[in-house]
Amino acid sequence: MQAINKERVAGLLQGLAQFGKTEHGITRLAYTAEDKAAQEWLLKQIQDLQLKLSVDAVGNVFLRREGKNTDLAPVAMGSHIDTVVQGGAYDGTVGVVGALEVLYMLQDEELERPIKVIIFRAEESSRFGFATIGSKLMAGVGDPDKFSGAAKEGSVTFKEALTEWGCDPAAYKQARKAAGCFKSFWEIHIEQGKVLEETGERIGIVHNIAAPTRFKIIVEGIADHSGATPMGFRKDALVSAARLVIAIEEAATNEAESGTVATVGVLDVEPSSINVVPGKATLWVDLRGVDEESINCALSDIRDAVSEIAKNDSITITMDMLTADNPVALSEELAAKLDVICAAKGIAYRHMNSGAGHDAMHMAKLAPASMLFVPCKGGISHNPAEYADNEDICLAIEILAEAVKEEASA
Amino acid sequence: MQAINKERVAGLLQGLAQFGKTEHGITRLAYTAEDKAAQEWLLKQIQDLQLKLSVDAVGNVFLRREGKNTDLAPVAMGSHIDTVVQGGAYDGTVGVVGALEVLYMLQDEELERPIKVIIFRAEESSRFGFATIGSKLMAGVGDPDKFSGAAKEGSVTFKEALTEWGCDPAAYKQARKAAGCFKSFWEIHIEQGKVLEETGERIGIVHNIAAPTRFKIIVEGIADHSGATPMGFRKDALVSAARLVIAIEEAATNEAESGTVATVGVLDVEPSSINVVPGKATLWVDLRGVDEESINCALSDIRDAVSEIAKNDSITITMDMLTADNPVALSEELAAKLDVICAAKGIAYRHMNSGAGHDAMHMAKLAPASMLFVPCKGGISHNPAEYADNEDICLAIEILAEAVKEEASA
Repeated sequence: MQAINKERVAGLLQGLAQFGKTEHGITRLAYTAEDKAAQEWLLKQIQDLQLKLSVDAVGNVFLRREGKNTDLAPVAMGSHIDTVVQGGAYDGTVGVVGALEVLYMLQDEELERPIKVIIFRAEESSRFGFATIGSKLMAGVGDPDKFSGAAKEGSVTFKEALTEWGCDPAAYKQARKAAGCFKSFWEIHIEQGKVLEETGERIGIVHNIAAPTRFKIIVEGIADHSGATPMGFRKDALVSAARLVIAIEEAATNEAESGTVATVGVLDVEPSSINVVPGKATLWVDLRGVDEESINCALSDIRDAVSEIAKNDSITITMDMLTADNPVALSEELAAKLDVICAAKGIAYRHMNSGAGHDAMHMAKLAPASMLFVPCKGGISHNPAEYADNEDICLAIEILAEAVKEEASA
Repeated sequence: MQAINKERVAGLLQGLAQFGKTEHGITRLAYTAEDKAAQEWLLKQIQDLQLKLSVDAVGNVFLRREGKNTDLAPVAMGSHIDTVVQGGAYDGTVGVVGALEVLYMLQDEELERPIKVIIFRAEESSRFGFATIGSKLMAGVGDPDKFSGAAKEGSVTFKEALTEWGCDPAAYKQARKAAGCFKSFWEIHIEQGKVLEETGERIGIVHNIAAPTRFKIIVEGIADHSGATPMGFRKDALVSAARLVIAIEEAATNEAESGTVATVGVLDVEPSSINVVPGKATLWVDLRGVDEESINCALSDIRDAVSEIAKNDSITITMDMLTADNPVALSEELAAKLDVICAAKGIAYRHMNSGAGHDAMHMAKLAPASMLFVPCKGGISHNPAEYADNEDICLAIEILAEAVKEEASA
């Protein structure tokens, strides 16, 4: 096996970080011109790998290195290159660049099986309100109509974006893959939490992935003049929305021991004028964990809070469920292989769960799947300050190269 | 005096309502193309009055009817034609159309003094975060730099809008008027509250105007991944902002007996993604009343809440004062004249205060000023459902015509 080229890894990550760069971090939303430009640049950089390119019906990209036996199910690796609004340079890109570096390291190896690197489209939910759209469609979960349903008024829907990208939304089923199409699937990702940093361990082997339950809560009050409407005569949608934000925070805090979390990431107020009592407020909520019972408990508390606040404030509040995914168990067999490699190398590592969702959770429907976590500074991600040390990234790539070499050998 | 033409009044109000009309009410923000088109249309309709038009250095419009003695200080009337976002068809326009109808009614009268109708620019704070900009600049309050300071990132500042309107921001002092420039100032306005509707009275004679104290509160947390950041590790700016919204509502409710009110009309969250813990939240607060002590008491409670929430949540919260106007007393002498006219006509009327700010409060610095309130349905204003009965509007115009005739006679 060739030695890892750490400069190439750092160079590709820095190069991708130029696409969508703004004053406040990187905004490279899925299916935008920035997403396309980043992908085209990356494919140009790795032309020397001479991989066979194919694109599925929803824009997921496959880069195939041939095996001695072309009929065997390939070993697959991959992640995504889209970001949130004002995101960082490592979430997703580490998994794509890492997978490509594995192919560089294995360039001189004659391996039995083909290997595929996948660039999944639209892992982040920032643009359409749904996460991991590319891998979902590959695994037969959801459809373009559903993914178009959460679009804010006036914004581009998933179907419109897909069409603009050159895909026919009606042909989305062609992107579906059958179980067994890959021998296994592997993904490197930054942790997006503080556990590894705090314990000083350099690698996380992931066993379960928390999946988000997402919903909108709509509060309908009455817009009134801010000066001439006495306090007792108001139906202020923002005041009720504020009570909901606090109730949601409390519901998750009560379940914190089970690792359950809840976030109101978006709160839209209408008409949003300093001299008008808010007539409407919409909250977008993300609830998740690895323990279904705990998630359901928090959701039940939130539903109770909605009823209680609606009653006490005499205001109309409705809930609109968007997604309710279940936590996913990754392959214990593949995790054991990573365990052996890490132990043999004398690396400080840890078995852990993922609070964030990943494409691997849908790939787990198609093949045994496994993930490697890399520490990230302060646990910060989805933020311009997101940072992972290149040494840590390269260590994960070296471990993955050994695992994939073994996987592709038989 | 000619009889009022109720159809003309209704027709001009309905005509103005076409400019800025949207699916959800009227959005005719100050200094926009809609504002200009509405004004041009109105001036065209009243050409038969043969008024002398002049425009000051910040775009306020004056329409002069000559008196026998051209050297005497004119009697002035007026209001505004800009609206809030998703506003209604009566706020402001009733005062402008009403003043013009008074001139129609007095067309055959030979009066000693000139009469002026003023269309004030930018009475609503919806575009620049400051209210009554046109009348403020006329009274020598504030300057274009100050009024440009509250603009949201990326939006047009007051100075830019002024330039686009054809005015030179540097020449704003030319718009200032000296005390005594008018004999008196009169404004008809919808009540924007429910008092007249509930008491069944048809006219309000206004004695004091509440003035808004406005400020921004900025909460700075840390943007983090919504799934991978445990509840106890968060600095969620929106959770602290929600506590502030509730504290502000409580502070005003405690002062409700004195008529003090407080509103968070705008709450901006950043980065505003469903899968990111909010890193920043900005609240725009409007606090007002007619009792300075009560206003200060509420403001003090809000300051205490800011300190307490910042401490308890270990988060950075800063307050940025925008305006702190004092309540304004209108002319008791002019109110007494209206009282006599109403009593003589046998009309059910009431002496009252205004919770909303008006151009009249700045005109009160230049001349004795008075206001007439017209009931509005449900007390609703700044809303597409805003409605005032044409009979009520016309009654106020008839009263004003008598008062102005008397004022202009000597």
